Amino acid sequence: MSGQRTARRILGIDPGSVKTGFGVIEVSGSQAIYVASGVIQAGTGAFAARLHTIFTGLTAVIAEHEATESAVEEVFVNRNVQSALKLGQARGAAICACAGGGLAVHEYSARAVKQALVGRGGADKSQVGYMVRATLGLQGTLREDAADALAVALAHTQHDRLDARIASGAAR
Amino acid sequence: MSGQRTARRILGIDPGSVKTGFGVIEVSGSQAIYVASGVIQAGTGAFAARLHTIFTGLTAVIAEHEATESAVEEVFVNRNVQSALKLGQARGAAICACAGGGLAVHEYSARAVKQALVGRGGADKSQVGYMVRATLGLQGTLREDAADALAVALAHTQHDRLDARIASGAAR
Repeated sequence: MSGQRTARRILGIDPGSVKTGFGVIEVSGSQAIYVASGVIQAGTGAFAARLHTIFTGLTAVIAEHEATESAVEEVFVNRNVQSALKLGQARGAAICACAGGGLAVHEYSARAVKQALVGRGGADKSQVGYMVRATLGLQGTLREDAADALAVALAHTQHDRLDARIASGAAR
Repeated sequence: MSGQRTARRILGIDPGSVKTGFGVIEVSGSQAIYVASGVIQAGTGAFAARLHTIFTGLTAVIAEHEATESAVEEVFVNRNVQSALKLGQARGAAICACAGGGLAVHEYSARAVKQALVGRGGADKSQVGYMVRATLGLQGTLREDAADALAVALAHTQHDRLDARIASGAAR
């Protein structure tokens, strides 16, 4: 860990009450470099303990990998209200960990993430996973929750670049 | 703050993404004594900041009033999925604060809270507020979110007593 890091490190999160995926990338110029990814297993025990595991797990990830900002997928829950409530609680724990670590939290819809990575909002998960591995030059497989977390982190870097192009008048 | 507190202090919480009510009571024998109550205003700004306000606010309440356990109303959301998601996130932040403070988190349905306080699961809010004030010997008015938080804390003490009666064979 360097004491004077100035590079941007984005923590992407795919929250869930059983498994929470995370992925950290470093932004260097127009390049995104893979730093770390994984899945926090919150298990199936008491719900409060699961939320605490998500919170403490992400707090540790933020400290270890020196994340400077975070990106979380906006949730579109088409299932029932009880699922939304569970997912909401997991998401609340994850966002608290980011805010507690001083990270700004950016939110992107699943559609925006797919659009950014694959160029098509209706792309399927396997295409997203493929583009995550290709963009970051990763070999082998990635666990799905980790790939989703890296995807939202990558979408955030593209969003930033788009903002910069718009600001400079390069986009029309 | 005493260094060697052994009394039980229950933190009741009524989580919400705009306002989160809290109430702390101390259990002394069969008596419940009012310690503190209030409302954490999370405001209407960025959602992540609101969740962080709930988390840090409750963390401060737990430390200041030396809560030893917590009780939260189970949510029954009959509205839409987006409301459930928002409320779930607020609840996740609240439960993280409790778990982070080492407090066990107990959950009670709204019906169980009303049953415990008023003797009738279908009681209305004003009756619950009246019984909270009567049980704790409070004068004047209580803000609704604070009253709801104290109500779930009181319901938890009654639940404990019922458990004790069942264990001792006094209940049938």
